[in-house]
Amino acid sequence: MKYKFIDNGMSAVQGIKSSGIHGGLKKVKKDFAIIYSEVKAAVAGAFTKNAVKAAPVLVTEEHIAASNGFCRAIVVNSANANACTGKLGMVNAKEMTKIAASELQIEPQEVLVSSTGVIGVQLPMEIVSQGIKKACAAVLAGNSSSDAAEAIMTTDTFPKETAVEVEIDGKIVRLGGIAKGSGMIHPNMATMLAFVVTDAAISPDILQKALLEAVDETFNMISVDGDTSTNDMIIVMANGLAGNKPITEKNADYQALKEALSALCFKLSELIVRDGEGATKFITVKVLNAPSVEDARKAARSVTTSALVKTAIFGEDANWGRVIMAVGNSGANFNPDTVEMYIESNGGKEQMMKDGMGLAFSEENARKILIEKDISLIVDLNMGTAEATAWTCDFSYDYVKINADYRS
Amino acid sequence: MKYKFIDNGMSAVQGIKSSGIHGGLKKVKKDFAIIYSEVKAAVAGAFTKNAVKAAPVLVTEEHIAASNGFCRAIVVNSANANACTGKLGMVNAKEMTKIAASELQIEPQEVLVSSTGVIGVQLPMEIVSQGIKKACAAVLAGNSSSDAAEAIMTTDTFPKETAVEVEIDGKIVRLGGIAKGSGMIHPNMATMLAFVVTDAAISPDILQKALLEAVDETFNMISVDGDTSTNDMIIVMANGLAGNKPITEKNADYQALKEALSALCFKLSELIVRDGEGATKFITVKVLNAPSVEDARKAARSVTTSALVKTAIFGEDANWGRVIMAVGNSGANFNPDTVEMYIESNGGKEQMMKDGMGLAFSEENARKILIEKDISLIVDLNMGTAEATAWTCDFSYDYVKINADYRS
Repeated sequence: MKYKFIDNGMSAVQGIKSSGIHGGLKKVKKDFAIIYSEVKAAVAGAFTKNAVKAAPVLVTEEHIAASNGFCRAIVVNSANANACTGKLGMVNAKEMTKIAASELQIEPQEVLVSSTGVIGVQLPMEIVSQGIKKACAAVLAGNSSSDAAEAIMTTDTFPKETAVEVEIDGKIVRLGGIAKGSGMIHPNMATMLAFVVTDAAISPDILQKALLEAVDETFNMISVDGDTSTNDMIIVMANGLAGNKPITEKNADYQALKEALSALCFKLSELIVRDGEGATKFITVKVLNAPSVEDARKAARSVTTSALVKTAIFGEDANWGRVIMAVGNSGANFNPDTVEMYIESNGGKEQMMKDGMGLAFSEENARKILIEKDISLIVDLNMGTAEATAWTCDFSYDYVKINADYRS
Repeated sequence: MKYKFIDNGMSAVQGIKSSGIHGGLKKVKKDFAIIYSEVKAAVAGAFTKNAVKAAPVLVTEEHIAASNGFCRAIVVNSANANACTGKLGMVNAKEMTKIAASELQIEPQEVLVSSTGVIGVQLPMEIVSQGIKKACAAVLAGNSSSDAAEAIMTTDTFPKETAVEVEIDGKIVRLGGIAKGSGMIHPNMATMLAFVVTDAAISPDILQKALLEAVDETFNMISVDGDTSTNDMIIVMANGLAGNKPITEKNADYQALKEALSALCFKLSELIVRDGEGATKFITVKVLNAPSVEDARKAARSVTTSALVKTAIFGEDANWGRVIMAVGNSGANFNPDTVEMYIESNGGKEQMMKDGMGLAFSEENARKILIEKDISLIVDLNMGTAEATAWTCDFSYDYVKINADYRS
């Protein structure tokens, strides 16, 4: 059975409860979340590749190792990244796990921790302590994936959550997830915060493999502004309550779960790009017939990170020269003389380039295509059989406005 | 004797004449330039590393090789890049050199060609032919470096020219140059169009070495928007009329000339960044005490290409967290726990970071510093003795406006 999308985010998953509350780091909005599994869950994670890693990233990596890959809860705060905060930052991140562990009556090393927000400011631990306690009380009393999704937001304009369902070993397995991120989004890591829960039974090592495969196709192929934060992470917890035969190798069950996980990760990635700071359009870049997947990915990513491409799409200008310029800068192996290029949307499809040269295309058709909100740029290298897709948003006045004003 | 800056751009150099005229590719502004040496000149060049190279780039490389490194003239047009134009584009680029050669009574292979402007449109050769003839007539009748500087502009808001003078082997040697570029500017190549002439006597191979050293410290360390065009090139012509003993090895004369060339290239680079599309501020990023020059350059460049850093400076926001984030993403070898950071301008100097942590700095002082037009970000890695400097501009609303509207 192929997966299908369902409602209720993380709340769709058996044995998972979550909460989001206002603790006081923000003025009025929710700023603390707890994600809690009623039983031990296998855990997997992917973390920022930035050389500067925030304290919660280091503590979470430490706890996953110390607990042999089985955890119970994730505590998250927004509005303060606890990054570049030195030894005190590490003490505070560990203290966050201790407070949550005490409230939930589990071990501190079974609690993972994540923070997002301004860099370089120490956490006000009195507020943090009260916030975590309030969030734990909420999770013990109820369950709201959407509250959790709200509580992890920073410059996001809407909360991001989704869920999928798939049959594995005759059992209904569900996966739910939330994410945040609308700037500082770039490939080469788990590119934002995302938390995924599932009731699948799976071993931690094989869950880690599935996560990395899914991330390579989804979160690592999106870009908003080419920057990679100090705090990014994606965590998956799998508590086994669906009752399927535990997945411990790359068999058909693994494949089914991995596809569902990829679909979920893609949906969360898409929501992040659609909420890209100042975004007015969603841009899909497909590179076809490349010599290798790596070449296709390089070329697609290079187009999605070009400020010149992104401003042209904002201006609804069929400036395909900038697209081929970006492909040329990508380091991908290709022959400039065999490239074809198309733009496509609900407004139609138009070929811009053939045999590496510009075509005399219809400006009127191009305008009809580019006026739409969802635009595809298709680059056919005519040099092999590999392909890749990357996603980004356009680059508008509001991107500049949001980021010139963010800290103050 | 150390070099000094002098007036008159390329016109300061003996035996060099240049012109810029309106030929009709633009509505009213100048769009064709000729740079001409009265005697054969040793030539060196650095070219775009984009895999998609425009026809004039390929023809110029071919002519430098075919003429054994000695040329007489450069013909340049703006408003049309002659890129992604296939075989016809190659024919047209060669035709441009033939027309100029015929008018100047030299060999076609002694003429180099350069184009800048929109990608993917064939040159209207009737206009081009008339334009080149008019520009050649102007260069035979007179000499105006500033007209040439104007004629190579695209989105540039002001022409860019400079000259330096240095004593070598008891002779006064002069160098003059013009450049264009205000977007699609990024390291990893000769990052725009720049044409430098000198009356120094020097062999082509050693001139090439001097050029590449100078470019590595200057043009390769500037960034406006992280994009690299299909047409970028820098050409140096040295005609020997200064009468110095020809430089054929890396001796003291070489060093003196190289320093003068670097100073000239830096000045042109600086003008390009100051004219960065929508730029309101000039940003210098110094990385100190790095383990190697390569690490220092990686770190400095990463900061200059971060949209988040550039929008923060536009917003006059002391958001040093974005600077350390960019250093962390650079791939440079460093220890996050030993980093110090400062911001500095005519408004003062303030330390933002020590031992990898944020400091409680004065927001009032930071504001005084950031309100200035020239801002330095200083990152001390405290891990070695190497250093590097990179330059960029801020990222404003007008960058988006200019690039959303450029083609139309």
